[in-house]
Amino acid sequence: MRVVFLRHGESIWNRQNRFTGWTDVDLSSRGKEEAENAAKLLKEAGFEFDLAFSSLLKRAIRTLWIVLDEMDLMWIPVEKSWRLNERHYGALQGLNKSEMAKKYGEKQVLLWRRSYDIAPPKLDINDPSHPRFDPRYRNLSPEEIPSAESLKDTLQRTVPYWKEKIFPEILSGKKVLISAHGNSIRALIKYIEGISDEEIVGLNIPTGFPLVYDIDERGKKLSSYYLGDIEEIKQAQSKVAAQGKAIG
Amino acid sequence: MRVVFLRHGESIWNRQNRFTGWTDVDLSSRGKEEAENAAKLLKEAGFEFDLAFSSLLKRAIRTLWIVLDEMDLMWIPVEKSWRLNERHYGALQGLNKSEMAKKYGEKQVLLWRRSYDIAPPKLDINDPSHPRFDPRYRNLSPEEIPSAESLKDTLQRTVPYWKEKIFPEILSGKKVLISAHGNSIRALIKYIEGISDEEIVGLNIPTGFPLVYDIDERGKKLSSYYLGDIEEIKQAQSKVAAQGKAIG
Repeated sequence: MRVVFLRHGESIWNRQNRFTGWTDVDLSSRGKEEAENAAKLLKEAGFEFDLAFSSLLKRAIRTLWIVLDEMDLMWIPVEKSWRLNERHYGALQGLNKSEMAKKYGEKQVLLWRRSYDIAPPKLDINDPSHPRFDPRYRNLSPEEIPSAESLKDTLQRTVPYWKEKIFPEILSGKKVLISAHGNSIRALIKYIEGISDEEIVGLNIPTGFPLVYDIDERGKKLSSYYLGDIEEIKQAQSKVAAQGKAIG
Repeated sequence: MRVVFLRHGESIWNRQNRFTGWTDVDLSSRGKEEAENAAKLLKEAGFEFDLAFSSLLKRAIRTLWIVLDEMDLMWIPVEKSWRLNERHYGALQGLNKSEMAKKYGEKQVLLWRRSYDIAPPKLDINDPSHPRFDPRYRNLSPEEIPSAESLKDTLQRTVPYWKEKIFPEILSGKKVLISAHGNSIRALIKYIEGISDEEIVGLNIPTGFPLVYDIDERGKKLSSYYLGDIEEIKQAQSKVAAQGKAIG
């Protein structure tokens, strides 16, 4: 059995080096090209899909739309869920690296960046950008709506969705594509591979390169690989790692 | 309770005056503009949606995508079903008016155009364009896959979907948008309004103008109206009626 993860292409805020999180920022023109390229790689490798999943954020949905359009698969069912959203970056959302260091200090920023289970400062519950004011999250319980998340928090909402919704479809024989975000994909891969809390820090998912997982019937990894030119992928991963150093 | 129907914008084959049916032809650039215009009309009138339905054909799906994008509603759930597809035009698919008259005679063509329950000639079961070879219809039973449909046949597959899937959502309070086709919308309106087999011939749905139905809890019409400039709508309806004369 097989599943393909795709991290959305570059967004407008990625370009500006700002924390995005749950902010619904669109793809940049480069991000759209990355999505088209991902579709070409999937087509060239002969992939087909029966079902796709995405987050509720337009950078992931638009990436998926571009891929489905390019692959002539606009008609397949698509399930969207907040559980595949990017990690909620709390009060850091919208800030860029220098604003963040100025506001919270370099030492504290390092802690948020490197720890698995420490969340950034919470977004004020009355901030107009808080997800509790967003109609797309109106069916969530108050406990489900985050004001800030650690990677651990992200994992705790993505893994149940994998177990209850995504994996049963794969198990039933469906060919599944997941269009999501750096941290929601890292959380799922941590679970599938059983990566430790310490080691997950070093895992960097490049944008725009389909990541293929062959898994067994218990959902554990047999093998995994990226589609695309290996040098380009390494460069893209280094870029993500460097972004990690710069913006956490 | 309220529901909005939207007939997809002009397709490339509409432009060439060819019967499309289940052929998966994309929107023309004019069709995309019509979809953008429909979104603007919906926004200006203050419409919001919780859920959308479309057929499995890309001219309806792309119309919906353009509207959802423009309305900043890409995140709402979308259900796609073959039951909202255009009427299957059988062996007429791909033919234009003059080819059709040449092949079948003017008199016969008139009958297909004007009758409610006479289907056009069947598409050969071994024709590579037969829906039984299309992966999007692989879960349908052999009896469900049409080789040609009358409007009555179209009604018999759309109305159960309305009753079982769409109307219960409206009844539960959801604001629903349906992106579909001239004949799948005509079939649903025939049912909702109780229009007779004779009178349905005169009902023409223009492309690109949202059609709003206020309905009661039994699903019967209270009132209906189009969004948009009344003169433009009349012109678009006359165009459809004239197309009807030309191509059935």
